[in-house]
Amino acid sequence: MAVIGAGMSRFGELWNMSFRDIVISAGLEALEDANLEGREIEAMYVGNMSAGRFIAQEHVSALIADYSGLASINIPAIRVEAGDASGGVALKEAYIAVASGIHDIVIAAGVEKVTDVGSSSEIMDSSIDKEWEAFNGATLAGLFAMMARLHMHEYGSSEEDLARISVKNHKNAVNNPKAQFRREITVESVLNSPYVAEPLKVLDSAPISDGAAVLILASEDVARKYTDTPVFLDAVVQSSDYLALQNRRDILEMRAVKTATRKALKLAGCSLDDVGVFELHDSFTIAEMLLYENVGIAERGKGHEAIREGVVELGGSNPVNPSGGLKACGHAVGATGIRQAVEIVYQLRGDAGKRQVDAETGMAVNIGGTGATAVTSVFRR
Amino acid sequence: MAVIGAGMSRFGELWNMSFRDIVISAGLEALEDANLEGREIEAMYVGNMSAGRFIAQEHVSALIADYSGLASINIPAIRVEAGDASGGVALKEAYIAVASGIHDIVIAAGVEKVTDVGSSSEIMDSSIDKEWEAFNGATLAGLFAMMARLHMHEYGSSEEDLARISVKNHKNAVNNPKAQFRREITVESVLNSPYVAEPLKVLDSAPISDGAAVLILASEDVARKYTDTPVFLDAVVQSSDYLALQNRRDILEMRAVKTATRKALKLAGCSLDDVGVFELHDSFTIAEMLLYENVGIAERGKGHEAIREGVVELGGSNPVNPSGGLKACGHAVGATGIRQAVEIVYQLRGDAGKRQVDAETGMAVNIGGTGATAVTSVFRR
Repeated sequence: MAVIGAGMSRFGELWNMSFRDIVISAGLEALEDANLEGREIEAMYVGNMSAGRFIAQEHVSALIADYSGLASINIPAIRVEAGDASGGVALKEAYIAVASGIHDIVIAAGVEKVTDVGSSSEIMDSSIDKEWEAFNGATLAGLFAMMARLHMHEYGSSEEDLARISVKNHKNAVNNPKAQFRREITVESVLNSPYVAEPLKVLDSAPISDGAAVLILASEDVARKYTDTPVFLDAVVQSSDYLALQNRRDILEMRAVKTATRKALKLAGCSLDDVGVFELHDSFTIAEMLLYENVGIAERGKGHEAIREGVVELGGSNPVNPSGGLKACGHAVGATGIRQAVEIVYQLRGDAGKRQVDAETGMAVNIGGTGATAVTSVFRR
Repeated sequence: MAVIGAGMSRFGELWNMSFRDIVISAGLEALEDANLEGREIEAMYVGNMSAGRFIAQEHVSALIADYSGLASINIPAIRVEAGDASGGVALKEAYIAVASGIHDIVIAAGVEKVTDVGSSSEIMDSSIDKEWEAFNGATLAGLFAMMARLHMHEYGSSEEDLARISVKNHKNAVNNPKAQFRREITVESVLNSPYVAEPLKVLDSAPISDGAAVLILASEDVARKYTDTPVFLDAVVQSSDYLALQNRRDILEMRAVKTATRKALKLAGCSLDDVGVFELHDSFTIAEMLLYENVGIAERGKGHEAIREGVVELGGSNPVNPSGGLKACGHAVGATGIRQAVEIVYQLRGDAGKRQVDAETGMAVNIGGTGATAVTSVFRR
């Protein structure tokens, strides 16, 4: 399978753009990038977490088909939702639609417009178990804070280690023109920012952003008609874990991430050593650190060493989040999984400007909530 | 492709059951029906329109995987949403997942719990265009009312004709033990019920119901291990139309329905004459009447003749909604597309009791909102 086009809106507080403006702008950029007419699209998958609550609109797949003109050719348009893994799951469903031979050219999109409501944090918390977690006072930040506390207790990681992850991602975002926060921060500023849920602080937490990202997938035969240099999507695998943290035997083990990543590498026929660039889901800094361990960049209990030693920096052996990640590029919830994939595509095509990494193979890992859904994708140039 | 198991909860106001109870009960019935262990399931697709607003919970795919025990085997669980076509779209995605060869045994579920909030009508209206329709005062009922008015004006159909559709569906539901309204009504009682949006009345309108329905799909090779008498799912096709009624050239032509139905019949290798039993989306009586025309049971402008002449009655040549349809079996929104399919499966297996129709082939048509999404599926025994 090949990626023949990629596009994204700027991420941030897009006060002058509505939901439909945001997603259409990203879609047009992807179509231009692919040098494609809209009418060549055969199906559209849209990742979106909560348009129902953010903009009081369900059925957004039909809305986007309508406003992009694609309803005129009656293509199937499908919204998929899995908390902040919605984008990753949309990519996986689009992948299956092409891999099955049912469609040749398919859009995988993700979009969220969150700044029109004041209750976005409470809405974000609807990706955890409302009856058994949220009802008892837990929040997404609070659950990740428990994971951080346990890691610190068991393995000696520190608030400074987590702060370093945030600092790295901000540094990378400076060179990403689509990023929400294009400014460096320091470990001190992170440590001095207010607690959200101790030990996690405001600057350990991804913002909630407006934004959209779009990939165009095609079978390899068809892709050759449009480009001589496609990026190949060798695998997208989704797995699940218990939604409620209390049901997991070990809250530092992200079983969905492990399963999805192991299967994706096997499908792609490569090992983690072959992967030269990563986009890992850093809704909180602790999430990124746990992903080092659960993806396999670091051993269990040694995630903090990867950031201390610079392994995951742009010049390191396993650069993570060259885009700035969710923390600094922004976290437009349902768009994030696609946005991560767009960055990997830019990196593998050599289109990443000053944040360019030299890599043949890239990986994106998108999770929902505290990891009940995980999607791992492997791209190759 | 084969259906090896089917199950559903009762539809109605299920005050004593939560979202998770409802879907798990339907799932267990389907697993028992298939004589299958949960661990044999490889993926789960869930149609759900608006858990975010009905129960303040997104990420319901992970919730269901968790509470069904399937998170222990890390299967991918995907929620799809397309207004009240969510169930149909879930069926289609599950179909593709098996047809692609990626999975052998997959669950297609639909579920909605609506009675925990007081604003369910406003939430239902989020399947139409909020900015361009609802904001200007339109409701789902109001838009269907315009379609009804135009049909009456152009073709001479009447409020009595629409009432007859409701009477038929109530009559059928008497023999459906899972139905919400198991009582006959009369044309007079429909005509005397209050207007919702003239000319549509309360008794022209489907209720909003709690409920869940589940199908288990398998490749034909695998199906033979579980049953000697599978029902075959020969085609599921989804199409789109403009979301906003104002963007359609002809509001009585349901282009998504026509396209999906034509393609589904072609894929299934049969004609409409071969189809002996139908479940058609009757969110309002006018929707069912327009489906007669757009599916092809009646010619354009002659939908009302099909009900006047009894063609669509249980003893007629094209029986429609033996289950009682959305009107009388109930309309658990995201569950409806799967619930329709469950009825067709029961009919083709000869398990429909006193509402049994003698048919070799059956069709279900599920639409979202005023028809911006349509899914047509064709089953065969």
